[in-house]
Amino acid sequence: MDLNVHDEMTCQVRDVLDRVGDKWTLNVVHQLRHGTRRFTDLKRGIDGISQRMLTVTLRALERDGLVARTVHPVVPPRVDYALTPMGQTLLKTAWELIEWAQTHADDIAGARRRYDSTAG
Amino acid sequence: MDLNVHDEMTCQVRDVLDRVGDKWTLNVVHQLRHGTRRFTDLKRGIDGISQRMLTVTLRALERDGLVARTVHPVVPPRVDYALTPMGQTLLKTAWELIEWAQTHADDIAGARRRYDSTAG
Repeated sequence: MDLNVHDEMTCQVRDVLDRVGDKWTLNVVHQLRHGTRRFTDLKRGIDGISQRMLTVTLRALERDGLVARTVHPVVPPRVDYALTPMGQTLLKTAWELIEWAQTHADDIAGARRRYDSTAG
Repeated sequence: MDLNVHDEMTCQVRDVLDRVGDKWTLNVVHQLRHGTRRFTDLKRGIDGISQRMLTVTLRALERDGLVARTVHPVVPPRVDYALTPMGQTLLKTAWELIEWAQTHADDIAGARRRYDSTAG
């Protein structure tokens, strides 16, 4: 089940992981699971994200072909974001990691307390 | 399948994702899939990681209870790292994401080329 003969992740795969493993990326993908969302809805739905960080994250997802951006010619302009078919497959996979994080959040918090009390 | 009633990831879950979604963390977990490894083996196995970044990543994984560190009282001291049972469950989940990245690396590269040629 190795990724290549050198027993390492290829540079390309590491690059993709670095992108999609990002906290904000996973949050945005998660927010788009039920369908199309507007920029302001996304911003409201993601606690702690800045306007600039949301813009950067959405642009990177669009560039990766994971999110489609639609500008509606209305006044004021309305901009919608939705997962592409490839983005949907990422959602499915990323969901597992989100569930893992949810399942183990308490265990990890406990491990940290034990580690910090020993280190201290 | 929502994570909480506010339709957001909890802070704790986001924090865990931020940690384990990190490129180097996934690389280290991946390197430990076959069992115990020494620091120098890990460093050799992960292309581009610095000594300092590997130290930081391993310490964080140890603190999270995902990796166990064993110091053998020999001269020079030998230090081994291995996944804990909880770390094994992360490996299983993270593997899916790694496979997704591998499967879609070419599609993403293509999407980027198209995006960049349009933007340019």
